[in-house]
Amino acid sequence: MIIRSKRIMTPLRTIDGYIEIDNGIIKRVSAGEPKTDNYEDYSDYIIMPGFIDLHVHGYGTGSLTHEKSMESVIRMGQSMTRQGVTSFLPTTGTDSLEATAEMMSAIDKAMDSWDSTKGAEILGAHLEGPFINKEYKGMQKEEYCIHPSIDIFKTMCESLPIERIQLMTMAPELDNALELISYLNENDVQISIGHSAATFDTIKKLKNFGLGGVTHMFSGMKGFHHRELGVAGSALYFDDLYCEFAKQTGLTVLPEAVDLTVKVKGFDRITLCSDAVGLGHVQEPFYHYIRKTEFVPCGDYVLLKNDNGNEKKLNRFSIEDMTEIEMGYLESVKNLVNINGFTLQNIMKIASENTAKYINQYHRKGSLEEKKDADIIVLDENLALIQSYVLGTPQINV
Amino acid sequence: MIIRSKRIMTPLRTIDGYIEIDNGIIKRVSAGEPKTDNYEDYSDYIIMPGFIDLHVHGYGTGSLTHEKSMESVIRMGQSMTRQGVTSFLPTTGTDSLEATAEMMSAIDKAMDSWDSTKGAEILGAHLEGPFINKEYKGMQKEEYCIHPSIDIFKTMCESLPIERIQLMTMAPELDNALELISYLNENDVQISIGHSAATFDTIKKLKNFGLGGVTHMFSGMKGFHHRELGVAGSALYFDDLYCEFAKQTGLTVLPEAVDLTVKVKGFDRITLCSDAVGLGHVQEPFYHYIRKTEFVPCGDYVLLKNDNGNEKKLNRFSIEDMTEIEMGYLESVKNLVNINGFTLQNIMKIASENTAKYINQYHRKGSLEEKKDADIIVLDENLALIQSYVLGTPQINV
Repeated sequence: MIIRSKRIMTPLRTIDGYIEIDNGIIKRVSAGEPKTDNYEDYSDYIIMPGFIDLHVHGYGTGSLTHEKSMESVIRMGQSMTRQGVTSFLPTTGTDSLEATAEMMSAIDKAMDSWDSTKGAEILGAHLEGPFINKEYKGMQKEEYCIHPSIDIFKTMCESLPIERIQLMTMAPELDNALELISYLNENDVQISIGHSAATFDTIKKLKNFGLGGVTHMFSGMKGFHHRELGVAGSALYFDDLYCEFAKQTGLTVLPEAVDLTVKVKGFDRITLCSDAVGLGHVQEPFYHYIRKTEFVPCGDYVLLKNDNGNEKKLNRFSIEDMTEIEMGYLESVKNLVNINGFTLQNIMKIASENTAKYINQYHRKGSLEEKKDADIIVLDENLALIQSYVLGTPQINV
Repeated sequence: MIIRSKRIMTPLRTIDGYIEIDNGIIKRVSAGEPKTDNYEDYSDYIIMPGFIDLHVHGYGTGSLTHEKSMESVIRMGQSMTRQGVTSFLPTTGTDSLEATAEMMSAIDKAMDSWDSTKGAEILGAHLEGPFINKEYKGMQKEEYCIHPSIDIFKTMCESLPIERIQLMTMAPELDNALELISYLNENDVQISIGHSAATFDTIKKLKNFGLGGVTHMFSGMKGFHHRELGVAGSALYFDDLYCEFAKQTGLTVLPEAVDLTVKVKGFDRITLCSDAVGLGHVQEPFYHYIRKTEFVPCGDYVLLKNDNGNEKKLNRFSIEDMTEIEMGYLESVKNLVNINGFTLQNIMKIASENTAKYINQYHRKGSLEEKKDADIIVLDENLALIQSYVLGTPQINV
């Protein structure tokens, strides 16, 4: 298969050319005309590598958090291709060890059953907790925040082999953290500092044992102070730490705070994630205190009851309905472009290249280069999604 | 008079050459040998422009804050030449309007009586308050923090003409601030945001009416938060705002916090001040809660009673004794060089060039260039001060 466009974004430059795909792999990326008439012509649409979402609990028609099933993980990935995401880490939240095992097992089965006709590729798991600090729990469940323990972690891995755990968010200031950090590091699990009260000194001391960056920069962490830099200040200070920014509504983290981070760190150490949860899939009535809305499950539907009296009923299995209630990856990208003035090159870096590098997958993901997976998205000039390819398989309207 | 050295720091480069001084003014700065044998040879000592301290309440043998006299202001300036400072703004603290008038009048008289044999040049006043926010009073007196008022300000100017007020620290979020800001701006008074709870929006709105920067960055101001940037975040965010750093003990503001600021803003918008107060000159027993020491005046002496039982008696009019109890400008410079790794070019920028520019005195101060004042310091390679010239007049051992 050959894809043609005047704007193919490669790591070095944007070319007017084509991508030849063979068996899901990019065989050739070249400027100029294909040597055949048999190609998909995207004219002057933008062609770029698919986004990689390293932090997503649920989205659209699926939710690991709320449904904890293999099917739900697959549905998440299918919905995400509508947002330009071609691979992802389904992400557990901090929950009881039983619930965590259920989630991890769902991911394991989803990975076994996945093929490229089934949405974004599942690259493995991101475990957000349970080894986090309740002082900075955010929306995680306080009663399940526990201290690091290799024994507990090994038990967890009975539901999902450690080779399938790509990333763990934890609080390195907790007792016995170093032991777990070292173990994770030896087993090639990337570690993000998150939901953490860690001090500058703790981070400085433990960083080189395997701490790669921070989870949802600025949120759920000890903030910057000029006499104690905290997690936020440390993430700004240490050049090599990655900063993950979660969905860019412009409210949770102000655009100016994002700009400041970029000013300090450049684009090489910024990643973008959705941190979406698949809100439509709550299993019990759930009150969202920021939105001032109660989400009430009712069969295939979810009822939204706003404090202002408004009600709305949405289909949990309709991607259109679900897109309405939760911001997707591409929407964050549009905000970064329109509000922060990021270029598409910046976006390619933080959404595809850096995310792939962070979990050591850049040898096969994150850029349009020969021998890499054909994870490709097509956008129009307003950044509306035209098509997503996962390993060369088109995901939309097929 | 001619000064010769192998390391004369000019704005463009360090030269092996000489400076010719005529009537207090630099007549010529040139590489090469002077055309006469009649010169002061500083061999390979460092020659740089004198430092300009824009924020100093007292130092060494004098204290505007504690003595409120013309003589004390002159003594401050004499002591400061030992620290490489060749011009300064004696700085009032927030006090009763009567006490403020007394301080302003002392500055006025000191300026009238000053000549270059009497220490560092008095460039005018810096008024730190009284229009500041008591919420961020720091060590200022809460009961005298008042709302901005042009009428009160005009009354204040009866003790010191507005032409002699170079800088005012104020809180722009207080009622009627804009009116005063505009008035100060029309009268060429620079304005620093300090002791302030101003939000990002307030600063954004008022900035272009005349706010030039912030006083003692990070201290006495609304700190950075990712949903409300505050004064600290705004100072980082807006490229054109100057950040004043007060004495660099390494404790008040961590070196890493200084480094982060430089990473964001570069060196063009950083200034260095001492914010010293002349602690030895207290008029009544004063307990310093950070040092855990009581300062008790006793005639020409001051008695230091530490909480740990140690006592020490020091002569208020001995520069050596006074240097012991308060960090001087050059000591901050040494810390920035030794701890933060600043180069002498960086120091020249933040201590001489930027400070001069901030109060619109760069046409005559802040660099070693022809037609500028011969405010020159000589340092050895360990940054020990060898000599200070104020308008060509040597200040040490004469």
